[in-house]
Amino acid sequence: MHRIELKSLLADRAVGTPSGRVVRALSERGALSATQIAHITGLAKSTVSMTLSELRKSGIVVEGPSLERGASVGRPATVLTLNPQAGTCVGVLIGLGQARVIVADVSHAIIADTVTELDPDFSPEQAAEETRRMIKQTYAEHSMPLCGLLGVGVAVAGPVNPIDGRMQRASVVPTWAGIDIRTVFGPVLQRPILVDNESNCAALAEMMWGAAIGYEDFVLFKIDMGVGGAIVSGGRVLTGIAGSAGEFGHMTVDPDGPLCRCGNRGCLELYASFKTPLQHASKRFDRPMTMDDVIVLAKEGDVGCRRLIEDTATAAGRGLGMIGTILNPGLIVIGGRMALAGDLLMTPLAASFEKHTLVKRSDVSGPARTELTIGKFTENDSCMGAVGLVLRHHGRLA
Amino acid sequence: MHRIELKSLLADRAVGTPSGRVVRALSERGALSATQIAHITGLAKSTVSMTLSELRKSGIVVEGPSLERGASVGRPATVLTLNPQAGTCVGVLIGLGQARVIVADVSHAIIADTVTELDPDFSPEQAAEETRRMIKQTYAEHSMPLCGLLGVGVAVAGPVNPIDGRMQRASVVPTWAGIDIRTVFGPVLQRPILVDNESNCAALAEMMWGAAIGYEDFVLFKIDMGVGGAIVSGGRVLTGIAGSAGEFGHMTVDPDGPLCRCGNRGCLELYASFKTPLQHASKRFDRPMTMDDVIVLAKEGDVGCRRLIEDTATAAGRGLGMIGTILNPGLIVIGGRMALAGDLLMTPLAASFEKHTLVKRSDVSGPARTELTIGKFTENDSCMGAVGLVLRHHGRLA
Repeated sequence: MHRIELKSLLADRAVGTPSGRVVRALSERGALSATQIAHITGLAKSTVSMTLSELRKSGIVVEGPSLERGASVGRPATVLTLNPQAGTCVGVLIGLGQARVIVADVSHAIIADTVTELDPDFSPEQAAEETRRMIKQTYAEHSMPLCGLLGVGVAVAGPVNPIDGRMQRASVVPTWAGIDIRTVFGPVLQRPILVDNESNCAALAEMMWGAAIGYEDFVLFKIDMGVGGAIVSGGRVLTGIAGSAGEFGHMTVDPDGPLCRCGNRGCLELYASFKTPLQHASKRFDRPMTMDDVIVLAKEGDVGCRRLIEDTATAAGRGLGMIGTILNPGLIVIGGRMALAGDLLMTPLAASFEKHTLVKRSDVSGPARTELTIGKFTENDSCMGAVGLVLRHHGRLA
Repeated sequence: MHRIELKSLLADRAVGTPSGRVVRALSERGALSATQIAHITGLAKSTVSMTLSELRKSGIVVEGPSLERGASVGRPATVLTLNPQAGTCVGVLIGLGQARVIVADVSHAIIADTVTELDPDFSPEQAAEETRRMIKQTYAEHSMPLCGLLGVGVAVAGPVNPIDGRMQRASVVPTWAGIDIRTVFGPVLQRPILVDNESNCAALAEMMWGAAIGYEDFVLFKIDMGVGGAIVSGGRVLTGIAGSAGEFGHMTVDPDGPLCRCGNRGCLELYASFKTPLQHASKRFDRPMTMDDVIVLAKEGDVGCRRLIEDTATAAGRGLGMIGTILNPGLIVIGGRMALAGDLLMTPLAASFEKHTLVKRSDVSGPARTELTIGKFTENDSCMGAVGLVLRHHGRLA
């Protein structure tokens, strides 16, 4: 008797109010059909229908543009979004000598995307002021009320300590180490500020709108002038205890190798970023080359440029193989500007990954294989993810 | 107006029935005071009190032994457990030439712990039959009804594919590759079977009763005749898409190094397990040495044995440094029989970890530092974790 009662009690799942769950789903996912909402929230279709009717009556939810239905027949499903009037959010990327601002509303529509050059050694205070100016100007240009701004997400080029919110020593802008972005940006912008590392933001963008939609567990691996990334586990971007989770560029490949900017030796970034290959390319062509230049030449068939990309991919694949061995993710999204090289990067990268990782493709059936794919975002992933920070968290902060 | 309503809706949290949450907490944690239950479930003390009163009336919850209160005054807090009569569970470890069976009840009391030798090349069917015999005998010896057995957890020496439940090629018992333990053990034991890798089970044991109580995110790193481990994220032991998550022993240290049993070259296990050092020791002392022998001699001051332990620790620390860099866990629990060497292992291990990991102790304040600690379980961690599998999951399977 006890056993039966015990079992039924243990089988209970956590439930939330239907309205809260529907609104949360729409804020996180953007436009959804009633069927999708039922699937995501786990609510009954009738409950979703009733809840949506109430939410539409009160104006919180509105009808969005129709979903494409491909080759299927019948009238297209009605999709719903949060009312764009209900609020806007801003994503900011503070990069090397550059600030980018993206404005979006809670229906996930992008309203503006602006970039401004900054001094190479700008201070956090200057960045906050410049951000305020850019936001004000954008809202004025689009005749939007600033009072609708729910929060500002900030993506920064370095690990952010999740305990005290301060930037770490290993940042790309070392003079910002120890800075708490929230206390600098908060008083200037007068809004809740959400800060995370740029790669963590990029992972959020791929999860919300990009190559990792529907994945609760995946890895983002960025190959650019540095190597970075993020780990998503159970739908949550891991920060680690001090904010360094996902710092794949600093795995030790050779403990006796050259010194890295982080203070260790032989970090993966020294072999698998495109920094050194770009120096080779510039020397070979006797002019300053960009990553785009090398990729274009490689696609045109230049064997030297192809080899530089291939060697970078092979080195990256070794690090990625270790990530595959210990995290064994279902999906690895390759980001960073090197991803623009397409198959020239992906083919040797996949081969090197397969060589070094523990579980080989032939060991398991399709669904248990780790898939490698190019990210949807390359240029603006981090800034879009900063927007995502607000869409996912604003209600929890308020 | 919309904004305010939207915020309040977004702030809603998921809730479950109070009874379900209290029972779940007791099943997962064992003995708890009402205050602890309120803390864990997030329920109001009055709700907990009312719910406990109902659960006690129906006999599902009973009073347990008093909690130690240390130096505090006043009468000790009443602790509660699930009624031991409500059910029992069994954990099984299938190792190399050995099966271990631990029987516990839902109050988390251990009733029996038995080990049986098996042929080195025993089949899964033999293991299932032997397990059945051991369970039957133990229940008879303790006059317990077999009908109270809620489920059987099985810890196996290799990755388990979470999709199809089959053991992977990289298992310690290679002839078991492709076997689905549930379909072999299920018909024999006639109970729900829960299977996981032995290191994943060990992590569960450390989380439920050992060095990682209260940690939602930590890493278990085992140094024994092999190197293994587990990653716990958000209170969940990661399996990975094919079951290999946490296989730290197969990170590539040297892609041109010696061949590993997994088919790759230069895996961490070849440098950081105690297999090769033990061969050295046996040669040096001209007799077959065990890990215990070496540890005892090292503690007595034998410099050769000390060096063998130190070199193993240094190699392990390099791999652990990478784990620190990319996962940045708050806690790393060192398990495996090498942990019995205590400071002789931990001192060089911590130094090597600190040298190779990205975030140094001096970079961050105390709470953001990664702590290394010796596990509470060494010998029976995996089998205890197999018991834990049942305590945490039986209701969800039923």
